[in-house]
Amino acid sequence: MTSPAVLDPAIAARLKRDAAGLVAAIVQQHDTGEVLMLGWMDDEALRRTLGEGRVTFWSRSRGEYWRKGDTSGHVQHVRSVALDCDGDALLVRVDQVGAACHTGDQTCFDAGDLGAQVAAP
Amino acid sequence: MTSPAVLDPAIAARLKRDAAGLVAAIVQQHDTGEVLMLGWMDDEALRRTLGEGRVTFWSRSRGEYWRKGDTSGHVQHVRSVALDCDGDALLVRVDQVGAACHTGDQTCFDAGDLGAQVAAP
Repeated sequence: MTSPAVLDPAIAARLKRDAAGLVAAIVQQHDTGEVLMLGWMDDEALRRTLGEGRVTFWSRSRGEYWRKGDTSGHVQHVRSVALDCDGDALLVRVDQVGAACHTGDQTCFDAGDLGAQVAAP
Repeated sequence: MTSPAVLDPAIAARLKRDAAGLVAAIVQQHDTGEVLMLGWMDDEALRRTLGEGRVTFWSRSRGEYWRKGDTSGHVQHVRSVALDCDGDALLVRVDQVGAACHTGDQTCFDAGDLGAQVAAP
């Protein structure tokens, strides 16, 4: 199967992009439920992610496409992709190879606890 | 305990806000790992969330603070808040009362599967 050259118009019509043409992409480990990172996708990054079964982001800092794992080996194999109710966020469930964070931590949130007040349920 | 009037400067210094002064906030059910929704916070929304133990967002569509559950009853009790490695995303782990999505679905991603190609791991 070859990937289509453009994102499926039925999907493209549902995206609510920000001023830079991007939607947020939450990446979650499919079996443990661990939230690994947040990235950004434009239509082309989403097209590649859906078609290749590997996660591609748009890197806002570098201004280029970034297929996760191409340099680090820390590939994200796609298990499912879902768009939220208002079209501005994706939930990408993956099987992560190695650590998700460039720091070597398993997730990008591992070192960032802010010490919130914990309310009784 | 009374909440401070401004966000802890040590936390504020770590935030990498977008052009609108916001960071993305992923909300996850603390025990099941289910990703419930993505919202947005400015410094004040984060201050309230950390101080009150209830999640407050900045609503981009309505242009106002929005404490989840105040009208629906579908409150989000905060269990932890973590900032990611580059400071532009928060992971808020909560105990969700009722459905997280305004559609009545448990999560905002329930109806949005995009049928990704599933790669072999």
